Amino acid sequence: MKKGHMIVCDGSNGAGKSTIIQAIEEHLKSGHREVVVTREPGGTPIGEKLREIVLSPDTPEMCDTTELMLFAAARAQHVKEKIVPAIQEGKIVLSDRFDSATVSFQHYARGLPLSLIKQLNEMALDGFRADMTIILDLDPVTGLERVNSRGEGLDRMETQKMDFLHKARDGYLEQAKNDPEHFVVIDASQSLERVISDVLSVIDEVVAE
Amino acid sequence: MKKGHMIVCDGSNGAGKSTIIQAIEEHLKSGHREVVVTREPGGTPIGEKLREIVLSPDTPEMCDTTELMLFAAARAQHVKEKIVPAIQEGKIVLSDRFDSATVSFQHYARGLPLSLIKQLNEMALDGFRADMTIILDLDPVTGLERVNSRGEGLDRMETQKMDFLHKARDGYLEQAKNDPEHFVVIDASQSLERVISDVLSVIDEVVAE
Ligand SMILES: Nc1ncnc2c1ncn2[C@@H]1O[C@H](COP(=O)(O)OP(=O)(O)O)[C@@H](O)[C@H]1O
Ligand SMILES: Nc1ncnc2c1ncn2[C@@H]1O[C@H](COP(=O)(O)OP(=O)(O)O)[C@@H](O)[C@H]1O
Ligand SMILES: [Mg+2]
Ligand SMILES: [Mg+2]
Repeated sequence: MKKGHMIVCDGSNGAGKSTIIQAIEEHLKSGHREVVVTREPGGTPIGEKLREIVLSPDTPEMCDTTELMLFAAARAQHVKEKIVPAIQEGKIVLSDRFDSATVSFQHYARGLPLSLIKQLNEMALDGFRADMTIILDLDPVTGLERVNSRGEGLDRMETQKMDFLHKARDGYLEQAKNDPEHFVVIDASQSLERVISDVLSVIDEVVAE
Repeated sequence: MKKGHMIVCDGSNGAGKSTIIQAIEEHLKSGHREVVVTREPGGTPIGEKLREIVLSPDTPEMCDTTELMLFAAARAQHVKEKIVPAIQEGKIVLSDRFDSATVSFQHYARGLPLSLIKQLNEMALDGFRADMTIILDLDPVTGLERVNSRGEGLDRMETQKMDFLHKARDGYLEQAKNDPEHFVVIDASQSLERVISDVLSVIDEVVAE
């Protein structure tokens, strides 16, 4: 059996996560790997219900600690019910966002103490961690332009002030700088072809291990 | 302005929490106090959505950490949005279950580490605590008989094995023993009149402070 892996795509909205994950999936499948594509918050029936609550634009009264705990609750279920079992079966799990998003949005952008977020991430991950987190780095203004031209409504995270989104972006870069073994930053302002080719070389290295 | 208070009714299902809270409410209102009756999990629009998820019998796959975090998330919202503001306005908040239930069910009955539960309760409470937690103590077998004769369906907590419910009961007694200043145990196997009279003398002492 091949070795299973967990690879995360993260970064600003509109950076290209969904597009790139599809490209990675096709690439891996053409190499005869089993792939599980998933996302956070969500990924399980319980997690998707929590996603609805936590991303709903109808609950502006949600307090920061509640939000943080809901992301963590969905993550705990995701890791235990879906991710770890898939990896144990030799599959490659591709996740659209993961613990890095909580650190960026809740700590760097919202200003919750890093220690609180680390505690909750540790509880949720229960010893597990992603092999590699690919940060698709893009100016959030450009990201929002791309999202708007995609024509869907915005969720509770996407409707935050620009300052919030800039801090979140800086948070991704900071995390990558502090842990270069588990993070790689890809310039997502490049042409899609260029981004895909940069990402796929990272993927090939990770899955070769 | 009168001083606000937070009083919790907790204990086994069927012990009489809902019945007793109604009696306390009437008693306090006849003494011209403003009363807010609430419950956990729930008590806020966000909390009630989480209650549906966490108590639904349709998600047996929910893992213990997820469950714990959902109770904590609902509690954080409850404290910040509803309880603390009411107390600041001099009201008396009566809650059907609170942090004591998480300690009993998730630690004493489910076996999650007390340290984990305390961490999450502390995050959710953010320095707040109830003035008094009234434990309506009843053998869970008798409690279930009462609930069954009430004729409603059972939720995910009520359908646990008897052993689980016995451990939860012992957990309530243990908490009360360890913190006699904030807990009082009332024998809920007595006649309803007797239980109400025992409870109301506790209430009168608490609200006199
Ligand atoms: N490198 C790129 N250059 C230009 N447009 C891109 C690029 N990557 C993605 N897009 C487009 O931007 C929009 C947002 O991409 P998407 O994959 O949905 O981002 P995300 O999932 O990160 O929000 C889509 O319409 C997509 O086709
Ligand atoms: N002391 C008591 N003796 C007998 N029956 C009681 C007593 N207290 C409550 N009951 C009855 O038991 C049932 C469960 O009470 P309830 O207040 O709904 O409990 P809980 O809210 O703790 O689950 C109700 O039908 C109620 O009338
Ligand atoms: Mg996307
Ligand atoms: Mg009740």
